Amino acid sequence: METLPDGKLRIIPLGGVGEIGKNMYAYHVKDQILVVDCGLKFPDEGMFGVDVVVPDIRYLIENRDAVQAIILTHGHEDHIGGLAYILPQLNVPVYGTRLALGLARHRLGERRLLDSLDLREFAVSDTLEIGHFTVEPIQVAHSIPDSLAFAIRTPAGIAVHTGDFKFDQTPVDGRLFDVAKLARISEEGVLALLSDTTNIEKPGFVPSERIVGQTFDRIFRETEGRIIIASFASQIHRMQMAVDSAAKYGRKVATVGRSMAQNMDMAASLGFLNVPEGIRVRAEELGSLKPKQVTILTTGSQGEPLAGLSRMAAAEHRQVHIEKGDTVILSATPIPGNEDAVWRVVNGLIARGAHVIYDALMPVHVSGHGNAEELKLVLNIVNPQYVVPVHGEQRMMSLYAKTAEEMGWLPEDIFRLEIGDVLELNEESGKVVDRVPSGAVLVDASGTAGIHEVVLRDRQHLSEDGFVVVVAAINRATGEIVSGPEILSRGFVYMDHSEELIAEATNHIREMLENLPKDEARNYDAVQVDVRQSLKKFLEKRTQRRPMILPMIMEL
Amino acid sequence: METLPDGKLRIIPLGGVGEIGKNMYAYHVKDQILVVDCGLKFPDEGMFGVDVVVPDIRYLIENRDAVQAIILTHGHEDHIGGLAYILPQLNVPVYGTRLALGLARHRLGERRLLDSLDLREFAVSDTLEIGHFTVEPIQVAHSIPDSLAFAIRTPAGIAVHTGDFKFDQTPVDGRLFDVAKLARISEEGVLALLSDTTNIEKPGFVPSERIVGQTFDRIFRETEGRIIIASFASQIHRMQMAVDSAAKYGRKVATVGRSMAQNMDMAASLGFLNVPEGIRVRAEELGSLKPKQVTILTTGSQGEPLAGLSRMAAAEHRQVHIEKGDTVILSATPIPGNEDAVWRVVNGLIARGAHVIYDALMPVHVSGHGNAEELKLVLNIVNPQYVVPVHGEQRMMSLYAKTAEEMGWLPEDIFRLEIGDVLELNEESGKVVDRVPSGAVLVDASGTAGIHEVVLRDRQHLSEDGFVVVVAAINRATGEIVSGPEILSRGFVYMDHSEELIAEATNHIREMLENLPKDEARNYDAVQVDVRQSLKKFLEKRTQRRPMILPMIMEL
Repeated sequence: METLPDGKLRIIPLGGVGEIGKNMYAYHVKDQILVVDCGLKFPDEGMFGVDVVVPDIRYLIENRDAVQAIILTHGHEDHIGGLAYILPQLNVPVYGTRLALGLARHRLGERRLLDSLDLREFAVSDTLEIGHFTVEPIQVAHSIPDSLAFAIRTPAGIAVHTGDFKFDQTPVDGRLFDVAKLARISEEGVLALLSDTTNIEKPGFVPSERIVGQTFDRIFRETEGRIIIASFASQIHRMQMAVDSAAKYGRKVATVGRSMAQNMDMAASLGFLNVPEGIRVRAEELGSLKPKQVTILTTGSQGEPLAGLSRMAAAEHRQVHIEKGDTVILSATPIPGNEDAVWRVVNGLIARGAHVIYDALMPVHVSGHGNAEELKLVLNIVNPQYVVPVHGEQRMMSLYAKTAEEMGWLPEDIFRLEIGDVLELNEESGKVVDRVPSGAVLVDASGTAGIHEVVLRDRQHLSEDGFVVVVAAINRATGEIVSGPEILSRGFVYMDHSEELIAEATNHIREMLENLPKDEARNYDAVQVDVRQSLKKFLEKRTQRRPMILPMIMEL
Repeated sequence: METLPDGKLRIIPLGGVGEIGKNMYAYHVKDQILVVDCGLKFPDEGMFGVDVVVPDIRYLIENRDAVQAIILTHGHEDHIGGLAYILPQLNVPVYGTRLALGLARHRLGERRLLDSLDLREFAVSDTLEIGHFTVEPIQVAHSIPDSLAFAIRTPAGIAVHTGDFKFDQTPVDGRLFDVAKLARISEEGVLALLSDTTNIEKPGFVPSERIVGQTFDRIFRETEGRIIIASFASQIHRMQMAVDSAAKYGRKVATVGRSMAQNMDMAASLGFLNVPEGIRVRAEELGSLKPKQVTILTTGSQGEPLAGLSRMAAAEHRQVHIEKGDTVILSATPIPGNEDAVWRVVNGLIARGAHVIYDALMPVHVSGHGNAEELKLVLNIVNPQYVVPVHGEQRMMSLYAKTAEEMGWLPEDIFRLEIGDVLELNEESGKVVDRVPSGAVLVDASGTAGIHEVVLRDRQHLSEDGFVVVVAAINRATGEIVSGPEILSRGFVYMDHSEELIAEATNHIREMLENLPKDEARNYDAVQVDVRQSLKKFLEKRTQRRPMILPMIMEL
């Protein structure tokens, strides 16, 4: 890695640009690197059998000695969820606030990594001295408490990294976006702003989280039956408002879903959640309560098939059986890609008699990301020399860039980066000077990173047309068929209804094998290829389908 | 089938309730059945390798002699797309307006079914006498011209079937919802209303289609480069507005995508589209035009991978290469489930330098379905004895039912049906009296209806974990291994990187086979089961994955 002169700063996004998810950004000055966030994202369609996607950190591993630390903006999965996969390869100190580290510890504990790790807690009022970097955290509002922006002082100037933010003038925990601190630092002159762009398409300001509490209050006031609230397990603010309404209207609160219970415990023990004595009950105790005493907080707001709400909708939940009279509040909106699953769950709940309240009907969710006016306000306050939109798909980053142009920045001072781009900035100009190895690493349930593209392509093929195996044994000396051919298939046609087709295909291959030259001229590799080609043609003609075909011709 | 007395009407939805898609409704009086619409829907997630889904019409086939005809409300796929699959099994007359039949002919022609079919065109002013049914079409506004509601007069009373509708006070083709005719018929007293419920969650009235034309005009006025408009091929109104703007600002219009070209030709030849002389050019001629002379109408507004827009976004289109300066209008919103694909295409276009305009940025799309106030207005005008919400998922039908209650209908007069429910109505009361065989038939590219559940389940399994085949040959007499075991896998692990794993698995199975009893006590079915179980355990322990395992042990 190049050692940079004093006036130069390099910014290398290893995730989080051109996508929402797996945020990870490297800041490089002189001979040192500081990393902000280490997130995951969930697989796209077509990533069959993939559980999570994390940044490819080859660049950091190659420059392991230069990497000073990872600092965390907040505790959401798309900012901390990669730690469990990445720290075993890159064991560097991780700085985070109490809640972010609390959530990270849970994830890391699951993988039994905790002992060897160096997790360093800081408070928002601290200033972090990390190698050549001096980091000042700035409190922001977001959908999880303890969310921060960072002012990163370097020998090349100050970079402001917003993390995820909104302006909420009446936040649930009373902690406001620290505009004064941001403004004070900005007055010194900021070299670069890396800003969240998620909601740039939405005009105005996002409503306060408090509006959801008002809706909860109204629903609790008017509801006689059980109230079931589905949200993200990390949504501590929402938990607080549910607990508050429950306390006010004489209900108890139980959790369903391991992560919901864990996070509620942790948030309460760390002081982020205030649960009055006697409110919390175990799910097992629900049976002894009257419906109007029951509040259930559950996971599954994204239609995840194994989570609480989905199992309730499918009448497969052990403890909660949905009945007429139940009110379900879907306190979340579907993340793009999850719509089908979410609405399937909602329809299922309604079919079982529940009254389901979702965003189209009442304000039971607000976004954690600021709308266009909020993004513009931060850009104006920070007034950076260079503008770097992050945390958005191309369309959001592009619209943010256009907005910045309308606000007076020159196109050459705005950088829409791709993952791996090396943006080099100094006082005179900025330029993408290089590109480092980078991208996505696909991880499956086994924790094995790096599911190969060929495997994914095969899974795609198998998902559409299934496969056919043809097995036969041939006498090496005589060329006679000793056994088979036998055909077996899965995911292609229903074998029990396709006896005729399979019999014909078997005959077709038998004839082919019988007509092979009987002498030593036979080339068995060629035979395999011929069998595959011939069977492929036969099946495509008969079924218009193209299953994967695997011949296994043995020579005895 | 039961012959009903004069005063009884049965309504049996064979699709279109609890879902948006594959609309098909049977009306039964005395000994006769009339069918409204015959649609398809596109597969849900998890319906791997399925191309379209059509209604299961066993009930109609069992009562083939009773079925008088299928009448079509309009030419959208979810109302006519099932004809190609269903008419070969149930060849009855099909009544439709000119455009609906024109579109149906295209689909049927593709499958070479036209000769034997009985397609009967009618005009909106006609009254259709079909057996015991007298059908009066009522013009409605929708996103395709020639859309109708039906007043179906029967010996048991009048049923009003809305089809898909909205109130557009300034429709592009000038054809208004014929409120007068609906009101006149309704004054006679209506037994049942089957109403569209799609947009019941949206308050107020949906804006006029005309607003999209105004946006087009503004974009055409301000744009110097090429303009590419993506929409549904059936969106004749949108085509008209694009052609009008092109003519006004001196541009030519070319189509990309076979269905777009076909529908434009047909709509023009049937008089639904007015294309001034000299406006239309072939895509091949685009190269000789200046960018500001170019308008391209393309398919692919839903991110369909093979359609025009997706191929442009991926730089794989033969004729249209996206460049900086191009403006792409996405004149559609993603159908739920397509969001990921649509935004991937939009991001791809932006990455290639195009300016992309979609609904969040400017009003370039309006829905074809009326919002809550429109649905309420029709319910009040028709003032039926019984209310039957259709054309919606559970959540929409449920909200419509709640709305009808608030408007004064009694819960016992509102019927949220499921597919196959037999709703029997008379002047005194209504009741679901039976359920007929019904559901979904999955059709693949081969046109073969009826992809089996087992096959889908296998495809699901294969898509997640792939498969492993183990082949060996054993001497029947001695129990010695003659050949193998050999292991092959696809979609499981990347074979080139997993030699060790595969070698160990092979040894594991070899040991198992070597330890089999050498005498006749061997049971080869049991050996297959043992090999499967043992390999499953071995692989799960080593990889935490559960591939499908197929042992093929041959006895020689």
